[in-house]
Amino acid sequence: MKNYSSKNINHTLLTDFYELTMANGYFELGKKDEIAYFDLFFRKVPDEGGFAIFAGLEQVVEYLENLSFTEEDIEFLRSKNCFSEAFLDYLRDFRFECDVWAIPEGTPVFPYEPLITVRGPIIQAQFIETFLLLTVNHQTLIATKANRIVRAAQGRTVMEFGSRRAQGADAAVYGARAAYIGGCIGTACTIAERIFNIPALGTMAHSWVQTFDSEYEAFSKFADLYPDNCVLLVDTYDVLRSGIPNAIRVFNEKKPKKMGIRIDSGDVTYLSRKARQMLDEAGYPDCSIVASNSFDEYIVRGVVNEGACIDSFGVGERLITAKSQPVFGGVYKLAAVEENGEIVPKIKVSENIEKITTPGFKKVYRLYDRESGKATADLVALADEKIPEEPFEIFDEEHVWKRKIIENHECRELQVPVFEKGKLVYDLPGLEEIKRFCQEQIDMLWEELKRFENPHKYYVDLSQDLWNLKNDLLQTHKQG
Amino acid sequence: MKNYSSKNINHTLLTDFYELTMANGYFELGKKDEIAYFDLFFRKVPDEGGFAIFAGLEQVVEYLENLSFTEEDIEFLRSKNCFSEAFLDYLRDFRFECDVWAIPEGTPVFPYEPLITVRGPIIQAQFIETFLLLTVNHQTLIATKANRIVRAAQGRTVMEFGSRRAQGADAAVYGARAAYIGGCIGTACTIAERIFNIPALGTMAHSWVQTFDSEYEAFSKFADLYPDNCVLLVDTYDVLRSGIPNAIRVFNEKKPKKMGIRIDSGDVTYLSRKARQMLDEAGYPDCSIVASNSFDEYIVRGVVNEGACIDSFGVGERLITAKSQPVFGGVYKLAAVEENGEIVPKIKVSENIEKITTPGFKKVYRLYDRESGKATADLVALADEKIPEEPFEIFDEEHVWKRKIIENHECRELQVPVFEKGKLVYDLPGLEEIKRFCQEQIDMLWEELKRFENPHKYYVDLSQDLWNLKNDLLQTHKQG
Repeated sequence: MKNYSSKNINHTLLTDFYELTMANGYFELGKKDEIAYFDLFFRKVPDEGGFAIFAGLEQVVEYLENLSFTEEDIEFLRSKNCFSEAFLDYLRDFRFECDVWAIPEGTPVFPYEPLITVRGPIIQAQFIETFLLLTVNHQTLIATKANRIVRAAQGRTVMEFGSRRAQGADAAVYGARAAYIGGCIGTACTIAERIFNIPALGTMAHSWVQTFDSEYEAFSKFADLYPDNCVLLVDTYDVLRSGIPNAIRVFNEKKPKKMGIRIDSGDVTYLSRKARQMLDEAGYPDCSIVASNSFDEYIVRGVVNEGACIDSFGVGERLITAKSQPVFGGVYKLAAVEENGEIVPKIKVSENIEKITTPGFKKVYRLYDRESGKATADLVALADEKIPEEPFEIFDEEHVWKRKIIENHECRELQVPVFEKGKLVYDLPGLEEIKRFCQEQIDMLWEELKRFENPHKYYVDLSQDLWNLKNDLLQTHKQG
Repeated sequence: MKNYSSKNINHTLLTDFYELTMANGYFELGKKDEIAYFDLFFRKVPDEGGFAIFAGLEQVVEYLENLSFTEEDIEFLRSKNCFSEAFLDYLRDFRFECDVWAIPEGTPVFPYEPLITVRGPIIQAQFIETFLLLTVNHQTLIATKANRIVRAAQGRTVMEFGSRRAQGADAAVYGARAAYIGGCIGTACTIAERIFNIPALGTMAHSWVQTFDSEYEAFSKFADLYPDNCVLLVDTYDVLRSGIPNAIRVFNEKKPKKMGIRIDSGDVTYLSRKARQMLDEAGYPDCSIVASNSFDEYIVRGVVNEGACIDSFGVGERLITAKSQPVFGGVYKLAAVEENGEIVPKIKVSENIEKITTPGFKKVYRLYDRESGKATADLVALADEKIPEEPFEIFDEEHVWKRKIIENHECRELQVPVFEKGKLVYDLPGLEEIKRFCQEQIDMLWEELKRFENPHKYYVDLSQDLWNLKNDLLQTHKQG
C-alpha cells in the first residue's frame, strides 16, 4: 500500500477520451511527429478580481515525468475497438519528448497571456491537455481565492480548514498546497504537512467537549495534554456563559504556555469582542482568538472592519472550493504548427469573440517601472521578436488608440524553460520559496489591482508584430 | 508506478490534525475504547432542491479497509512533538474495528437523517471523520447535480465532460462516477472507464480541425479513421457556413455508420435548429446533434423548452464542480456514548438553531404508500424502538401540530450494515446496479419534490420517543 503522493500515481489515462482518438488519428495519418505549439491560458479572473496566482506547475511536472501506459492500459484501450495495433504498440514506449515553458508558480498572472507553452510532436503535445488543465485550473483557482482572503484579513493569519468539504481527496491535499502559496499560514490537512511540509494545525472538535461530563473537564484534560498549544473550542454549549469562563478557569489552573480559544458559531464580531474583554480582564491579553464560521474574503473584511477581536481565521468550504466561483477557466489551444521547419501560426475563430485565440509561438514579458518598482504591463510578443529599445509604445489590443510610452522599465521574461525534449531542465523551487516569491510579486502590483470591487484592469498587450499577425489571420479566415 | 485507483492509495493521514490530537488525548486519558456513536448527515439540499442523491460509500469502504499507519507516518507524527510514544505504538497496529451502517448509494436522501452511522471505540470512530465527510460530500454533491441536469434534459442524454475544470484529479475521476450514478450516460474521462467501466466518450477537439489544411480534410480523414462513430466538431470556423456543409459533404462521401455533429459555441438553440434542418434536407435525420457549451440544469431546461434540436448534452464545469453551489454540507456529529453498557445520548447545542443535533443511536425508515407506490415520509427513531402498528401518527419536529396518519404504507429501513467490528459485511453493489437503483428510487418520489423552484418539502420526522429525548436534553442543557 503506497502512501498518498502524486509522485506515486500514474495519471496517464486521466485524459479526455478524444485526446486518444485524436492521437490515434495523428498516428495513423503519419502526422504524429509534426511539431505543434499549444498555449495554456485563461480568459477571466475569478470573482472579478484584478489578478490570479499561478499554481500547480510542480504537479504538472510530476505528471509529465510519469507519463506512460501500462500493459493493462493498452489492453483496456484495445477493448475499445477503435485504435490501431500500431498505435497501441507506439503507446507501449510512449515517453514525453516535448519542450515546455512555464511561468513560475506563485506569479500573479492575467488573462490571455500564455502561462504554459508546449512545443513538440503533436501526438504528445495534444495528449497532455486534460491533465495540465485540471491541475493548473484547480491550484490556480485556490491560490487566487486564498490570497484574496489573506489580503482581507489585513495581517491577521488565515488557516486552511476545508478538507471535509473539498471536492475529493486531491482537492483537499493540493488545495492546501495552493492555499499555502496564496498566503495561508497552515492547514488542518495532516497529510499536507507530511507531503509538503505545510504546518498542520488544529486542536479539538465539539465531540471532544461532549464526551466529557463537563466542558470544564474537557478543557482541563486538554490543557494537561497540550500545555504548549492549548486552543479551546468554546462554543459547544454557550460561548460567553460557559465556554469562556471555563477556559479562563483552566488557564488559571494550568497556565498553558500558549493559550487560545476558538469560536465556531454565532455572531463572531460580538462574541470575539466580548471574549477579548473577558480574557483581558482575566489577565490573558496574549490569549489568541480564532474564529472559524463560514468565512470568505467579504465576511473577513466585514468583521475586521466592524472591529472583531480575531487574531486568526480558520477558513473552510468557501476557500477549499472557491465557493463563489469554483471554476478557473484555463484553456489549452493550438497556437502554431511547423511545416518544413517554418512556424505556421494557427488561430481559432469563434462566434464568441472572447474565444478567439492569439496565434503564433510567443513569449510574455512583464514591464517593471524602475522608479516605483511596480509592474506596469505585460507584453506578449512573437518568440523571435526583439523587445524594442526604450522608449517604446504599447497599445490595447481592442482599443488601439489607448497607447502608453514605456521608459525606464525593466523588462523580464515571465516563462522559464521547464522541459527540453522531454528532459526536465527546471530546478523546481520549494514551497516556501514559491510562497515568498508570490508575496514579493504581489507587492510589485499597484494597490488598485488588489481591490475586490472594480479593480484596475492590468494591461496585457500584444506587440505590433503579433497584433498584425492575429488580425491578418482573422481577415483571411473571414474571407475564406 | 501504480496505476490510478483509490484501492492503491493509503489516505490514513488525510485527516484534520485535530482528529490526531483528540485521538492522542483519548488514548492518554484511558478513554480510547469508550464506545461512541457518530452520525453523518446534512442540513440543506444544494440549489434549494427537493432531495439529494447519496453517493461515495464504495470509496468510504475502501478507505476504512486501507486504514493503517506506515512507519514513515509514525516517524512524521513523532516529529510534531505532541504525541505520546504509547499512542504512536498504538497507531502502528491500528486497524478499523467499528460498526458502520449506511444508506445504499443512489438513494434519494433528505436533510437531518443519518446517512452513515458509526459505532465503535471513540478513538477510531472520531478519527475517520474527515475522510468520510470529504468523500460523501463530494460524490453526493455531484450525483445530486448531475441528476438535476439529467432531469432537465427530459430524456435526451447527458454526458459528463468536465475533467479539465475539475478540482483536482480525484474530482474528475470520482466526479465522473457520481455523475454516472446521477444519470449521465458516460464521461470524457478515460480512466473512469478503466476503473469503473463508465463509457468513455469523445471524438475531436478544435485543434484536430486546425492542424489540417481545411475543415473538410479534417472531417474526411476522421471519417476514414472512425466510420463507426463519426461525430464532427463543426464550430471551429463557422457552424452554418462551413461546419455543417463540410460535415454533410463528408457524410455523403464516406457514409459512416454512426453520424453526429457537435456544436461547442454560439447560440445552440438557433444553431441546432438550423443544423437539424440542413442535416434532414441532406438526408441525415439520424445524424445526432451534440451540444456542449456551459450547460447546467437551467440552461438545458431553457434550450429544451425553446425547441433546440439537441439529442445529447455534453456538460462540463457546471456539473463537475456543481458550480452554482459547490459545497455539500455534510457533517459528522457525536450522537451518543456508552457508559457501563448503557447508551447515553449526546446533543450539541448551538447559537445557530439549525446546528443543534439529534441525539441517540437511531435508525431511519422510509414510508412508502402501497397505493401510489410513492414515498410519503422518512421517520427517524431510536434504534431500539419498534415502529408502531398502522395506523400511526407522524408529526413535524418544529411545528408539532402538523400531523399525518400513516396507513397502508410499507416501512423500509434505509440503512444497511456495512461493517461489523471492522469486518466488511456489505456486498458492495456494482455501479450499474447503483445507477439503476437510483432511478427506481427517484421514480418513487412525488413529482412535486423534483421541481427546481419551490419543491415540496419532504417530511423527515422524529418518532415521539426521539422527539421527547431531544427536547429533554435541550431543556437540561439550557438549565445547566
